[in-house]
Amino acid sequence: MLLASLRQQVLRANQEIARRGLAPHTFGNASGVDRSGAEPFVVIKPSGVDYASLTPGDMVVTNLDGKIIEGTLRPSSDLDTHTYLYSEFPQIGGIVHTHSEFATSWAQARRSIPCLGTTHADYFHGPVPVTDPLTAAEVADGYVRSTGAVIVRRFRAEGLDPLAVPGVLVAGHAPFAWGRSPAEAVEHADVLEYVARLAFRTVLLRDRPDLPESSDFEIPLYVSEHHYQRKHGPKATYGQR
Amino acid sequence: MLLASLRQQVLRANQEIARRGLAPHTFGNASGVDRSGAEPFVVIKPSGVDYASLTPGDMVVTNLDGKIIEGTLRPSSDLDTHTYLYSEFPQIGGIVHTHSEFATSWAQARRSIPCLGTTHADYFHGPVPVTDPLTAAEVADGYVRSTGAVIVRRFRAEGLDPLAVPGVLVAGHAPFAWGRSPAEAVEHADVLEYVARLAFRTVLLRDRPDLPESSDFEIPLYVSEHHYQRKHGPKATYGQR
Amino acid sequence: MLLASLRQQVLRANQEIARRGLAPHTFGNASGVDRSGAEPFVVIKPSGVDYASLTPGDMVVTNLDGKIIEGTLRPSSDLDTHTYLYSEFPQIGGIVHTHSEFATSWAQARRSIPCLGTTHADYFHGPVPVTDPLTAAEVADGYVRSTGAVIVRRFRAEGLDPLAVPGVLVAGHAPFAWGRSPAEAVEHADVLEYVARLAFRTVLLRDRPDLPESSDFEIPLYVSEHHYQRKHGPKATYGQR
Amino acid sequence: MLLASLRQQVLRANQEIARRGLAPHTFGNASGVDRSGAEPFVVIKPSGVDYASLTPGDMVVTNLDGKIIEGTLRPSSDLDTHTYLYSEFPQIGGIVHTHSEFATSWAQARRSIPCLGTTHADYFHGPVPVTDPLTAAEVADGYVRSTGAVIVRRFRAEGLDPLAVPGVLVAGHAPFAWGRSPAEAVEHADVLEYVARLAFRTVLLRDRPDLPESSDFEIPLYVSEHHYQRKHGPKATYGQR
Repeated sequence: MLLASLRQQVLRANQEIARRGLAPHTFGNASGVDRSGAEPFVVIKPSGVDYASLTPGDMVVTNLDGKIIEGTLRPSSDLDTHTYLYSEFPQIGGIVHTHSEFATSWAQARRSIPCLGTTHADYFHGPVPVTDPLTAAEVADGYVRSTGAVIVRRFRAEGLDPLAVPGVLVAGHAPFAWGRSPAEAVEHADVLEYVARLAFRTVLLRDRPDLPESSDFEIPLYVSEHHYQRKHGPKATYGQR
Repeated sequence: MLLASLRQQVLRANQEIARRGLAPHTFGNASGVDRSGAEPFVVIKPSGVDYASLTPGDMVVTNLDGKIIEGTLRPSSDLDTHTYLYSEFPQIGGIVHTHSEFATSWAQARRSIPCLGTTHADYFHGPVPVTDPLTAAEVADGYVRSTGAVIVRRFRAEGLDPLAVPGVLVAGHAPFAWGRSPAEAVEHADVLEYVARLAFRTVLLRDRPDLPESSDFEIPLYVSEHHYQRKHGPKATYGQR
Repeated sequence: MLLASLRQQVLRANQEIARRGLAPHTFGNASGVDRSGAEPFVVIKPSGVDYASLTPGDMVVTNLDGKIIEGTLRPSSDLDTHTYLYSEFPQIGGIVHTHSEFATSWAQARRSIPCLGTTHADYFHGPVPVTDPLTAAEVADGYVRSTGAVIVRRFRAEGLDPLAVPGVLVAGHAPFAWGRSPAEAVEHADVLEYVARLAFRTVLLRDRPDLPESSDFEIPLYVSEHHYQRKHGPKATYGQR
Repeated sequence: MLLASLRQQVLRANQEIARRGLAPHTFGNASGVDRSGAEPFVVIKPSGVDYASLTPGDMVVTNLDGKIIEGTLRPSSDLDTHTYLYSEFPQIGGIVHTHSEFATSWAQARRSIPCLGTTHADYFHGPVPVTDPLTAAEVADGYVRSTGAVIVRRFRAEGLDPLAVPGVLVAGHAPFAWGRSPAEAVEHADVLEYVARLAFRTVLLRDRPDLPESSDFEIPLYVSEHHYQRKHGPKATYGQR
């Protein structure tokens, strides 16, 4: 069996998608690439198979044209996006596609995620970009491959380094993340979801009127004082002290 | 030991608070009342004790004036609210106080929960009412007992039957729920939280512009058609079929 | 015992409702239909029985008029909706009714869920429709059966194929989903909830001002640069490297 | 090995961060201080090490200048914030830094959390303050130490007692919480997250139009009556009664 170690890594990354809740049902997939030989080989999850039952032998090996080199199952229906990205981003070694809930909601809203905090900055060098929607011609002309193309086009247009911005939102679809290995790719997919959750709530909080100024908004001081003192004051009545 | 069976029921209701996630830390409490004797006895959780370590013998027995009849631990600091409600609502046999997240958020927003769906209607005969905020005088004059008083005042003012509306939001504080038994009280506390979650999201969805009319909002038909057909059309490419 | 295999399938679909968190308490039910004989038979969950304690023998068998053919327990109180749908939608073999939180919130908001992304498009051919509210006459004239009637009316009015749009929101109530089998019905109920969650958040994000344009909104570049470089730059100080 | 008991306490507080879900990956850290000797010693989590694999011996001991006294691993990259706070707040014995989701969202929105309810009042004597954003000069001049400095500056400016307000939001970053011990610090970090969740939802509910007034908003009375009566009326049809 070719690429035993990479199969293991890809299997583990697929299982991490399920374990971390990044995709319900079989809506996610992970792959890795081996660039050590004359021709790069891609190892990818088979299509529509439950994460729990996957074995290393179920993984499908293809070349960068999507030709199956080893494997009896159909590869993930997103294969052509993976191979396109591996061809155009030679720095990356693993790709993870999820339907994680908040990142997908940003993708559906067709908005890039601005850098609103340091966790974002730790992992993504600038906003997480969103692609253009695919045109009708792009859908007709190989939908899955075109998904890779709109990702690469956005990165080229903004001069982004895929290792510095290890993920993207495909407009109206869902996120892709990547890294130097399948394990790094799934870590980035998980952090992307976390960052998307924070950004969603930050955005909802930001355009509120300046709350603390509104004296009517807080509970009355005589209530908060009473509560604070009954736990902390000299005559505390809470607990068994 | 007095009231062995009721102690068990009250213990179980307290454990349900923790198991259902209705109150973090020790921010919740359940009680029951035995009205079979000459004087009613209340069985209630001790204050500030972790749910996991509670035993039937830890429960505190008091009369309706809050006098301890049996028990070595301090009763819940909310005891006076419980005894007030048992005195004024002779129909009820169990009370559960939680800090469940969405019901508490409605209480903090000082809004009653309108009847927005049939699940609400199955359990609450009309809106879940919110009390008036306590006045400074009420806080000074026995805060915990006054909490019972503002609840009862709201029910009297609106002519509500406590068995038909088995719960309330105390403004700026949190919910109380009750029933014919401690088990029913905790079921009502759980449904109240569920209803509060639904109502929160319904309210956020309601005042949106009429979404489906906005053709720019949905994904393009050529994309949705492509996706639908690749799973369901005659040339489906998804899965292992 | 009639229909042993279908009883098993219906039991499993009911357990999936609980396992996937699609309905708290006993607020959900699954059924299946056997159309192989002269008269179709429906197998459905008994009313108000906890999912954990259900056995195949607890399932109730009725005909399409709701007459009990086999079973000692009362059938689900929603039986008449199920039989109505089986009568009018001869393509379907299983029905699942849930009170899943986000789909129910959309139902309570009386809004259809627009197709905002490809996951939606993979499963639902167009928006997930919402019914008209029931009229007073429809409630009086058999509430549960009328629930089926308003569903079918919406599908007829829009010329929808129930297998292409395998679910609906009943206004002010909750969702119903269906499929060729009970297992497919519960899968569709689960995806409907997932789609409803995504759509809820997409809608909240969509009508924000264009965030990334607001330079004041992001953290300052000197902070994000500092964070990015301390993890990724040549002088990284994070971790044990 | 120095400070065996404090190492245990700090280890347990770090594990609590993970167990309570207050920080994904390794984005959190806990420390404790021993002030019993001539010079105070700080015990802190090593940087970038997974919570699950931590042992007491992995903890790093430093003095208040951040000099390593015992330990072979690099200390948390946030060490200088911890030592700064221990120096300036002599009352505190433990510090916990998390990236808990809602508190971090408030920090990213650069808003203090107003006191909206009694749970807040039980733990925080007034709003949970938010710091100023760091200036470019502060970032250049020791970013981590400056994070401590902006916290202390906010407390001094408002005359706050760190034991009465045992936590803070660092603008654009995340929360810090503290207490008399590492265990108390992690309890405060958890309550801060809980309070942040409640406040987020309260804020979203508050500026809605007065819902219960809108008669069109609730479900029709003939529906709610029907539902209530089918569960509770004399002719109830729900369940097995």
